[in-house]
Amino acid sequence: MKYCSYCGHSVSRRIPPDDDRERYVCDSCDHIHYENPRVIVGILPIWESQVLLCKRAIEPRKGYWTMPAGFLENGESTADGASRETWEEARARVVDPKLYCVFDLPYINQVYVFFLADLSAPEFAAGPESLDVKLFDETDIPWEELAFPVVRTTLNHYFSDRKEGVYPTRNEAIYFKRPVAT
Amino acid sequence: MKYCSYCGHSVSRRIPPDDDRERYVCDSCDHIHYENPRVIVGILPIWESQVLLCKRAIEPRKGYWTMPAGFLENGESTADGASRETWEEARARVVDPKLYCVFDLPYINQVYVFFLADLSAPEFAAGPESLDVKLFDETDIPWEELAFPVVRTTLNHYFSDRKEGVYPTRNEAIYFKRPVAT
Repeated sequence: MKYCSYCGHSVSRRIPPDDDRERYVCDSCDHIHYENPRVIVGILPIWESQVLLCKRAIEPRKGYWTMPAGFLENGESTADGASRETWEEARARVVDPKLYCVFDLPYINQVYVFFLADLSAPEFAAGPESLDVKLFDETDIPWEELAFPVVRTTLNHYFSDRKEGVYPTRNEAIYFKRPVAT
Repeated sequence: MKYCSYCGHSVSRRIPPDDDRERYVCDSCDHIHYENPRVIVGILPIWESQVLLCKRAIEPRKGYWTMPAGFLENGESTADGASRETWEEARARVVDPKLYCVFDLPYINQVYVFFLADLSAPEFAAGPESLDVKLFDETDIPWEELAFPVVRTTLNHYFSDRKEGVYPTRNEAIYFKRPVAT
């Protein structure tokens, strides 16, 4: 950020009055530009004993498998946003999404809100951001080709919870950062 | 938003390529300025049979009672942010916050992430954003002087759950908007 989005003048980093951390503040109109974490919403869609995953058609992690998920938009609830992403990426509809995992990723300023939901029918297809969409048995999960640590963690929780038949909502902070390939 | 925070030129509302909703887009560098919901984190602090509430020293709803809560900052987990707000507003420390309520407020583009936690000691004081901080028995809750609908809903859930001794994590969208006083 270099310019004030309200008046167009330059901004600089300083601690505003009554605050205790640096913000971008306009050098002309003094407007404070707060920056806050963003929310990613998604669903682990279930059909009988299988889970639905999408192969990413876009970076980051193009070609790797993930759950349908994306940024929460203004004006929608987390469950509605997760259902929208499931339609956009997997062309699938779900029934009554239940809050399942809230993951904090403070190192990238993101909060993941994942739901668990049955597909309303075994119907799905690759949306524009997916190369492929597929139902997987537990034994066929491509563990080495998962896109993000949160996907692995969610799948581990799901298969473990399924043995007990209880799916408690979980909250975890994940500090792992994938090493950058050199 | 009137100006691009990257290059300082004017922005206008249009639908970017491969998107389906209007965004602020720079008329010069084409940078897309996404706007997303913000996360508010808070705690319902418990001491024995009482709950800790803060009387707001700032607008909106100055003089009304609320739980310690505020905007999640970059670089912190939801539980850490909630604990920070509890210190800032109530000068109180809590033990092991447990995810309790995730409320969607799509009409104001906010997601509330509330935790339940015991105070580590019955020690608290008004921080700079509070006029007063007090422990309340269920029978003494100032129901008519609560600051926000999410506070009322959280307290209702808590006192109901306490009867059962189980505190499941809840997720609800709240569409109520307080009427503006005329």
